[in-house]
Amino acid sequence: MAGYTPGEQPRDGNYIKLNTNENPYPPSPRALAAIRECAADDRLRRYPDPLGTAFRQAASRVLDVDPDAILIGNGSDDILTITTRAFVPEGGTMAAPTPSYILYRTLAQIQGASLEEIPFSDTWQPPSPWPAADANLSVLPNPNSPTGTMVSLSNLKRLACECNGPLIIDEAYADFAEYNALTLLAEHKNVVITRTLSKSYALAGIRFGFAIADPALVREFTKVKDSYNCDMISLAAATAAIEDQAYMREIRRKIIATRERLFQELVHLGFEVLPSQANFLWCRSRKQPVKPLYEELKRRLILVRYMHFEGYGDGLRITVGTDDECDRLLAELRKIV
Amino acid sequence: MAGYTPGEQPRDGNYIKLNTNENPYPPSPRALAAIRECAADDRLRRYPDPLGTAFRQAASRVLDVDPDAILIGNGSDDILTITTRAFVPEGGTMAAPTPSYILYRTLAQIQGASLEEIPFSDTWQPPSPWPAADANLSVLPNPNSPTGTMVSLSNLKRLACECNGPLIIDEAYADFAEYNALTLLAEHKNVVITRTLSKSYALAGIRFGFAIADPALVREFTKVKDSYNCDMISLAAATAAIEDQAYMREIRRKIIATRERLFQELVHLGFEVLPSQANFLWCRSRKQPVKPLYEELKRRLILVRYMHFEGYGDGLRITVGTDDECDRLLAELRKIV
Repeated sequence: MAGYTPGEQPRDGNYIKLNTNENPYPPSPRALAAIRECAADDRLRRYPDPLGTAFRQAASRVLDVDPDAILIGNGSDDILTITTRAFVPEGGTMAAPTPSYILYRTLAQIQGASLEEIPFSDTWQPPSPWPAADANLSVLPNPNSPTGTMVSLSNLKRLACECNGPLIIDEAYADFAEYNALTLLAEHKNVVITRTLSKSYALAGIRFGFAIADPALVREFTKVKDSYNCDMISLAAATAAIEDQAYMREIRRKIIATRERLFQELVHLGFEVLPSQANFLWCRSRKQPVKPLYEELKRRLILVRYMHFEGYGDGLRITVGTDDECDRLLAELRKIV
Repeated sequence: MAGYTPGEQPRDGNYIKLNTNENPYPPSPRALAAIRECAADDRLRRYPDPLGTAFRQAASRVLDVDPDAILIGNGSDDILTITTRAFVPEGGTMAAPTPSYILYRTLAQIQGASLEEIPFSDTWQPPSPWPAADANLSVLPNPNSPTGTMVSLSNLKRLACECNGPLIIDEAYADFAEYNALTLLAEHKNVVITRTLSKSYALAGIRFGFAIADPALVREFTKVKDSYNCDMISLAAATAAIEDQAYMREIRRKIIATRERLFQELVHLGFEVLPSQANFLWCRSRKQPVKPLYEELKRRLILVRYMHFEGYGDGLRITVGTDDECDRLLAELRKIV
């Protein structure tokens, strides 16, 4: 087993990092204040609240869901690990669309399960009917990575009905999109929605994600998770961040504006770019191989993500940075392309 | 499956908490400064170093081991989960002594494996020969919880030789003991030592633990762990804390002094107390049932841990607090016993 290889995280600060979909803006000042407060007395000698009650209450208010419908996680990777362990037996089957988030394959491998990869349709929708209805677990990211495309709400509902097992809708990037799947939860008890504070809340460094699902499912997940899977500082920062919706909306607005401009410029440069509802753009080219472009950009201290998918092909997944960072990227691309 | 129930963590601050082996002293000021530094700029928008290079280098210097022999974890619970997933197949067998840390049973259950519980000898050593030599994984805490007793180095060596599979020596409390098992690593490639910063470093709130093992094993564990299992703040705090050995030694010295005094007083009150090399004492009584004592102490706002083990019996596990906290406990016990 090879294990999952995350995007490059160079330790020196000289790169323009457009490769791991981090937010180019700082976290909410309220989140940073909450972190400093944790270091102001001796509270860190104590174990954190294993259930993350304060976060669940805050998220419950913001998202208008039952606090008991919320499961806290050490990043949404932890949530995906918990749900995989809860649902998928050794020798079982997971299903996910392709091309998509490459972690799903690793999760299946660690669990001793197989992953059935189901190609998206030409319009980036899951095929109808879903050919893996009997999988122990189906996972669908929405928006999808690396494409930034969205599955429609009606197709999500169809998929939730067709799946005999649970369906995870991985909404890591949903805050950048025009809609999300929260409304499905009331009618579809097999749907688990996962979220993260790594992207829209600019808090990849604290590792915090959560799931929203039927409270009966959340109770089962709670038995599988490490008791203290979230630390006290992450919980405090996440609670303050999700309560600061005004700040999140403001940085999201800037990222979406930059995304639309970057999209136009990349199309102008001759790339085939998919309209994206996430904080990244998926760029392919029929004119030239893109791997050398990735390498040349890296030499010029700009990191983007080169990705290749068996049976589909390759491309560059470019995170939407600040306007300045995107201008630097475009200037270099104009010299190279 | 019932899941693991951690010790009570009341959210109000009125209790004297002697039930979950937290450190009564604050974390190192250097750790707290490192946390504040993380909140001073925008670094938290970035993902953390997945390998925790800075921590591994610091721990390598302090413990005089190869940095590649160190695996970082989100608490030592995460380390135990990672190793269980790496070694134990569904339907496999884990082995651990009894009475011991009750999490091991939950870990086996989540993995769909069985736990073989092997009673300690009268002198709190593992029986010779180890009856579970063919288990997929044997786990031995040293010092043991709830007893605070130690397995001798020669018995640890014997056990490492007898086990055909890997042997985890869970050293969560080793900093309070007179020796540890680090010297075994050179000769016994199947030994994995786990440590935590929750106890001796007074950082239960940050969730940080690590393993020390053969670098070839650490490479395999790294494939199983969540890529970003440790967050940036915990890594920074853990690195600063382990570098501040003078501070750790000072609070350890105070805790050991209080432990010895508390031991004498509890014996004086008529309890059967085992000499402990950890930061807690295991108290039993032939004169009266101890569960009502736990309940009465709780009514008087002092939390200790009542534990019952099938085939062995029950007792109170009392964390060593500050001198003041222990005096309060003793004063109440004198009224109740």
